[in-house]
Amino acid sequence: MARAAAASGRGRFITLEGGEGAGKSTQARVLAETLSARGLPVLLTREPGGAPGAEAIRSVLLGSGPWDGVAECMLHFAARREHVARSVGPALEAGMWVVCDRFADSTLAYQCFGQGVPRAVFDALAETALGPLRPDVTLILDLPPESGLARAAARGEANRYEALDPAFHARVRAGFLAIAEAEPGRCVVLDAAGPPEDVAAAISAAVKKRLALP
Amino acid sequence: MARAAAASGRGRFITLEGGEGAGKSTQARVLAETLSARGLPVLLTREPGGAPGAEAIRSVLLGSGPWDGVAECMLHFAARREHVARSVGPALEAGMWVVCDRFADSTLAYQCFGQGVPRAVFDALAETALGPLRPDVTLILDLPPESGLARAAARGEANRYEALDPAFHARVRAGFLAIAEAEPGRCVVLDAAGPPEDVAAAISAAVKKRLALP
Repeated sequence: MARAAAASGRGRFITLEGGEGAGKSTQARVLAETLSARGLPVLLTREPGGAPGAEAIRSVLLGSGPWDGVAECMLHFAARREHVARSVGPALEAGMWVVCDRFADSTLAYQCFGQGVPRAVFDALAETALGPLRPDVTLILDLPPESGLARAAARGEANRYEALDPAFHARVRAGFLAIAEAEPGRCVVLDAAGPPEDVAAAISAAVKKRLALP
Repeated sequence: MARAAAASGRGRFITLEGGEGAGKSTQARVLAETLSARGLPVLLTREPGGAPGAEAIRSVLLGSGPWDGVAECMLHFAARREHVARSVGPALEAGMWVVCDRFADSTLAYQCFGQGVPRAVFDALAETALGPLRPDVTLILDLPPESGLARAAARGEANRYEALDPAFHARVRAGFLAIAEAEPGRCVVLDAAGPPEDVAAAISAAVKKRLALP
């Protein structure tokens, strides 16, 4: 869908990925503002969530558990399907630029690379929920896990994942890097260790290079 | 797994299926009591639900929506995976007889036959969530939809499905009958129109005939 979208006047789909404390939410907001300032119609959204049913699933995901790994993947893809059907898909059809804080790569990195759910489970669910839909550009904000976890702790956040052991976070980081290596046409790895302004500039430059910004 | 189970001293897995008001919950309870009275260890359970995470998903399923059809299937299978991983699987391993009010056939009948979700979606999710697990016996309580809906209304129940149009319920009924026709070794269709005692007797006879009751 990504390539067809670029050719047909449909919108563009940009996702931000990375571990805890990498600055995804902040950078997604800054990128959405940058695109808006260029006169583009922008939908800023996030996962899990981004649509009423998907937000209800988010509450269950974060409020219950621990989940069986396959069940957790299914919950993420159920939320993703709602998000795509109700929000992302219609926005792209309407020609909007969609900036999304986390998408399918997070499920692959956290549940498969991090928790050991078989890759085949991810592939079957992605095919079932998304068909050919892929982001046009995925920005992977890379950071040593200890730095990201320290940032998240300083913000007073401590979600379920942040409580997991350091080896888990190392596997998640390696997962994101492996995804980027496997799909260089879609993914850009950016160093997220510097000041937010520098990361924002790198993101702007990457988006400008990859997509035809007006 | 069903056949291997019967041969290896594992438990037996019995599911009750059918449309609204067919008496599944009542008959599941009666069957569980009948088996218990024969000295068998019994787990009486239901779907969606039957485990803490699965019950949380049930609340979201019934409390939100309307859902995208594929997302709804994924929620049902996420709940089913939790139920099987935490409750049904361990009970069968321990040699118990599991009596379950609704299982995967309900997703096939309601979402695929009733709402038009492609069969391939069901097959992919069933394979991902359940692997080779199948019920040993599935009792399909068959009833004209108008009778079942009248019964449900008389009980003061009106769930989301009961509010759907009559043609939907006709498709669900036809779906259950098609499942039974495709898998005669697993499924038994029973007339649920008579008095509950008669239905209970027919269920007992069917279970006795299909499984080696002590």
